[in-house]
Amino acid sequence: VTILAPQPGRGTLMPIGGAEDKRAARRILCRFVELSGGSTARLVVIPTASVRWTATGERYRKLFLALGAETVDCLSPTDRGAANAEANVALLDQATGVFITGGDQLRLLSHIGGTAVARALRARFAAGVHVAGTSAGASALSRYMIAFGRSGEVPSQRMVQLAPGLGLVENLIIDQHFRQRNRIGRLTTAVALCPGMMGIGLDEDTALIISPSGACEVVGSGSVTIVDGRNLEHTNVYDVKRPYPINISGISNQTLGHGERYELPLYEQAAGW
Amino acid sequence: VTILAPQPGRGTLMPIGGAEDKRAARRILCRFVELSGGSTARLVVIPTASVRWTATGERYRKLFLALGAETVDCLSPTDRGAANAEANVALLDQATGVFITGGDQLRLLSHIGGTAVARALRARFAAGVHVAGTSAGASALSRYMIAFGRSGEVPSQRMVQLAPGLGLVENLIIDQHFRQRNRIGRLTTAVALCPGMMGIGLDEDTALIISPSGACEVVGSGSVTIVDGRNLEHTNVYDVKRPYPINISGISNQTLGHGERYELPLYEQAAGW
Repeated sequence: VTILAPQPGRGTLMPIGGAEDKRAARRILCRFVELSGGSTARLVVIPTASVRWTATGERYRKLFLALGAETVDCLSPTDRGAANAEANVALLDQATGVFITGGDQLRLLSHIGGTAVARALRARFAAGVHVAGTSAGASALSRYMIAFGRSGEVPSQRMVQLAPGLGLVENLIIDQHFRQRNRIGRLTTAVALCPGMMGIGLDEDTALIISPSGACEVVGSGSVTIVDGRNLEHTNVYDVKRPYPINISGISNQTLGHGERYELPLYEQAAGW
Repeated sequence: VTILAPQPGRGTLMPIGGAEDKRAARRILCRFVELSGGSTARLVVIPTASVRWTATGERYRKLFLALGAETVDCLSPTDRGAANAEANVALLDQATGVFITGGDQLRLLSHIGGTAVARALRARFAAGVHVAGTSAGASALSRYMIAFGRSGEVPSQRMVQLAPGLGLVENLIIDQHFRQRNRIGRLTTAVALCPGMMGIGLDEDTALIISPSGACEVVGSGSVTIVDGRNLEHTNVYDVKRPYPINISGISNQTLGHGERYELPLYEQAAGW
């Protein structure tokens, strides 16, 4: 497998399905350090999604230093005032990579959505900084975010709640702990609510590495499920009462394992949904 | 009251709370025709939100012709294929104003979200075409749309479901039939899910005319309620289980009647949430 080379311009986006290996080969976390410059990587960890943000941030700080990163800072705005504070924004100035931890994606967005830190993160990503997010941090990367929902196979009304995410990518809906928590129903429902977009379901210990061109590579021990809604023909999501099943036609699903490639036509459509 | 002059660049946006007067003075509909050029107005009506789209479109066509518009066409994509068809897109080419009817906003977006018609509408609005929407058509104008929800005063978890809207404005959440259907709870919950954004609650027969500069004017027999979330301090929306009340602090509400003005700092923040 050829490793995708970083490209100038926008950064590489790396959603991870949660529970990535932190003790053995750690290939997902290694890959993120390597992508961000290896021994010259200057990383910022944002652990705000986690209730135990201090411990979570410290754990990743130690992990990334052990994997050879040059510096690792934690950016932990615990209220919206801190997320608008210049000192916190400045932490992003020198970063080559930003890592967003797990926890609760709506907790993260309630603290930093619409703040200077979120705007700076988008600006830095647009300028080439790589951004990874695991579990809640993965869901938070896109513009429309699965805030919460319930498990199950059958796409159904009110199965999923959407909210604004960080907006690093426009047309993806990202879900995580995918196979482990049986989330195909809620991801498909989300795609019905967002016709034309692509759903990305990440198993645990599995990442999708999305290069600036949209060329993707799967890394990890699980699979990535792609719910392709670009040619969605019809959905009755507007007609169904809670919590009954919805219809959706014209979507196609794929499942990709470690080393597999995929082309996401993402950024051309950026203003295009 | 000075009428806001149309400005070059982006069009004027005109969300209407539904049930606008169609028999007497018709001042909201008159205002839209006038804004779009009066006797030289070339209007396109999009009635797709309505189940009875043919009748709804025809009703507005007759109304706008009676109010002096030069031409009125109906653009009614009844499936996503039609919403990607060149002939339908071309209907927007010569329009000076577009009017989106009521019905069900998620029905509208399920048919045209992510299609060529939606992209053309955004492009035409950016080039100066004025866009009005009533009821469902008002909610559909913004990027994050209230898809559905329940009535009540108390902001509560799962009270509102968000989905992608047409994206003509970034940082507003628009609700309608506001006082008549007691929707302050769901609009406030939506602002909690979208911290930093502004909620706009439109009573029936009431419009907010939003000029390209963000200068606004209220027209109609009811009120416009503004739920200003720009300085939101804290919300526990991520912590509350269904369907319990949520906390939200730092928001401020205003209610404005006919002829009142307001400045929405909208477009400067366009890339900024």
